[in-house]
Amino acid sequence: MFEGTDLEVRIDGLNSKVRDKATRRMNNLTKPKGSLGKLEDLAIKIAGIRGELDPTMEDRYSLVFAGDHGVAAEGVSAYPQEVTVQMLENFIHEGAAINVLGKNVGSRVRVIDVGVASEEVPRPVLERKISKGTKNFLRGPAMSREEALESIRVGYEVVEELVDSGLDLLGVGDMGIGNTTPSSAITAVMTGESPKSVTGRGTGIDEESLRKKVEVVEKGLDTNNPDPENPVEVLAKVGGYEIGAIAGAYLAGAANQVPVLVDGFITTAGALIAHGLEPGVVDYLIASHCSVEEGHGVALDKLGLEPLLDLNLRLGEGTGAALAMHLVEASTSILNGMYTFEEAGVSSGG
Amino acid sequence: MFEGTDLEVRIDGLNSKVRDKATRRMNNLTKPKGSLGKLEDLAIKIAGIRGELDPTMEDRYSLVFAGDHGVAAEGVSAYPQEVTVQMLENFIHEGAAINVLGKNVGSRVRVIDVGVASEEVPRPVLERKISKGTKNFLRGPAMSREEALESIRVGYEVVEELVDSGLDLLGVGDMGIGNTTPSSAITAVMTGESPKSVTGRGTGIDEESLRKKVEVVEKGLDTNNPDPENPVEVLAKVGGYEIGAIAGAYLAGAANQVPVLVDGFITTAGALIAHGLEPGVVDYLIASHCSVEEGHGVALDKLGLEPLLDLNLRLGEGTGAALAMHLVEASTSILNGMYTFEEAGVSSGG
Repeated sequence: MFEGTDLEVRIDGLNSKVRDKATRRMNNLTKPKGSLGKLEDLAIKIAGIRGELDPTMEDRYSLVFAGDHGVAAEGVSAYPQEVTVQMLENFIHEGAAINVLGKNVGSRVRVIDVGVASEEVPRPVLERKISKGTKNFLRGPAMSREEALESIRVGYEVVEELVDSGLDLLGVGDMGIGNTTPSSAITAVMTGESPKSVTGRGTGIDEESLRKKVEVVEKGLDTNNPDPENPVEVLAKVGGYEIGAIAGAYLAGAANQVPVLVDGFITTAGALIAHGLEPGVVDYLIASHCSVEEGHGVALDKLGLEPLLDLNLRLGEGTGAALAMHLVEASTSILNGMYTFEEAGVSSGG
Repeated sequence: MFEGTDLEVRIDGLNSKVRDKATRRMNNLTKPKGSLGKLEDLAIKIAGIRGELDPTMEDRYSLVFAGDHGVAAEGVSAYPQEVTVQMLENFIHEGAAINVLGKNVGSRVRVIDVGVASEEVPRPVLERKISKGTKNFLRGPAMSREEALESIRVGYEVVEELVDSGLDLLGVGDMGIGNTTPSSAITAVMTGESPKSVTGRGTGIDEESLRKKVEVVEKGLDTNNPDPENPVEVLAKVGGYEIGAIAGAYLAGAANQVPVLVDGFITTAGALIAHGLEPGVVDYLIASHCSVEEGHGVALDKLGLEPLLDLNLRLGEGTGAALAMHLVEASTSILNGMYTFEEAGVSSGG
């Protein structure tokens, strides 16, 4: 998969035996068949991923991969680039949304610098910096092919380390001022949709800035002409370090039978890269929510993922993924905590 | 409000001072304004209901009001009537979906018999039986006006008792074989929509049974001709005991500044009754989810409530309400746990 590197990724299919067992049990629980809707499918998927009917959900992590973007110089964001590193401080002091929402579901937050544009980042941010921000993709590739591969490897390795110490459920998030712009570029390439239809307001730019942002994406794609059949090339030419790391995190989750919650638009762009490399990865992904960001729905459709929540979120950081962890827990509790008709002595329907 | 009775209900408006304070804080937290979507509105609503920026959310209850329905004799459900009391056993032994989902969010489940068609119900179901099931509304009113008022009073009193011992957040649910049929009848009357457009498959009936169910609702309304301006009459003529009790529970929650989570179609029919009696009640209601049941969306629109979740649920019991408690908790944690831009030293957007 990663020509010229020693990175090996092997993703097996879900455990169909356990999945069938889960389906049978779900259909015999004391409720009308199918009446718990998406939670039923979710419980069955989790059982298939973990290869157990009643998997533990104890060790949960929310990873926030952070990077900066040369293209931010084009004024594509409502916030200045320095906010990326300021937000790392905020994560460390537990004042950001992901800290609060992670805590609510017992998910430990880990922040990884893969490409923040500053010399120093606050401890204990995990330091895996590949470069101090990508280059502006209006003037050439955002990064080299080697750097793109390295970003994937970093995300992969961070997750593998967690697997070694115990990992039952993973939420993946992003931080990086300007990163909806590369995400729109990736989404346009990987779905074949026009830049205009997959470019939105990000953190909240006005009409005029949005028009400019669409132009930036169009020009970036014209200049670099990335090949959708070559996801590493797409990532290198118009992507970001944190997006590559996110793709790597998914691959590692899938390779280790860990369910991974995709967050919003940026992390879904990462999923498009991972899916391009290894389509089987999506069996292990759960779409936590549908963002208001233009293009998120299109990207999820391309992946064949249906989102659980629709709360008009557009924050990132893994916040939607953290919120959806409660639904994952609820779904497995249903499968394992409820009685069957027989166990409860209730007449089943005609 | 309740002519000829001594039941007094007084509902104040939300605390606008606290709500404004909550709005200001929400807009200064370290995230793009509005980027947490519905959770931001929810947090502000909760603050306005409780009259506190950081209300405790410790004492949570899920109430399941149970009753039977004479109209079940018309074959409107996929399940036999005996399932109502069998499910009470299941609730007591903690094998039902509401037990599992309540436990997940720390909500204590209480089951109240207001009209189950059996001599005995298992302990510790709270015994507040008004009658052993309603009459078949095809042949006249389901209950008397006095019984309708009594059902509202029971729901009201059950909640007032909880308030006395401590109640921060309430989820309301239903159990009663056949109860989507009276709910469709109530929804048709209170929204002015046709029976056909607000009658669905309930626990899962086939096409032929659905056609029959629509006819039953149409005939019931023809026979009884309830006046939408008189919600107690609507409840008496085509309602159910548990639906009346649910309406009373909302009124008590609102009168005591307790946020109440509405569950699915049946509990929303109860909300239509409560809203007809006292429109101010909706300020205190939170729509937890949008059911697949035909007519639920119409009823929520009439109440001006936007649902939080959309998971294709159609179970009842208060399951959707329990699931949404996590979002309520998440929203208040955001408001009170996150740092403002100033507190965090992060540059705010332009």
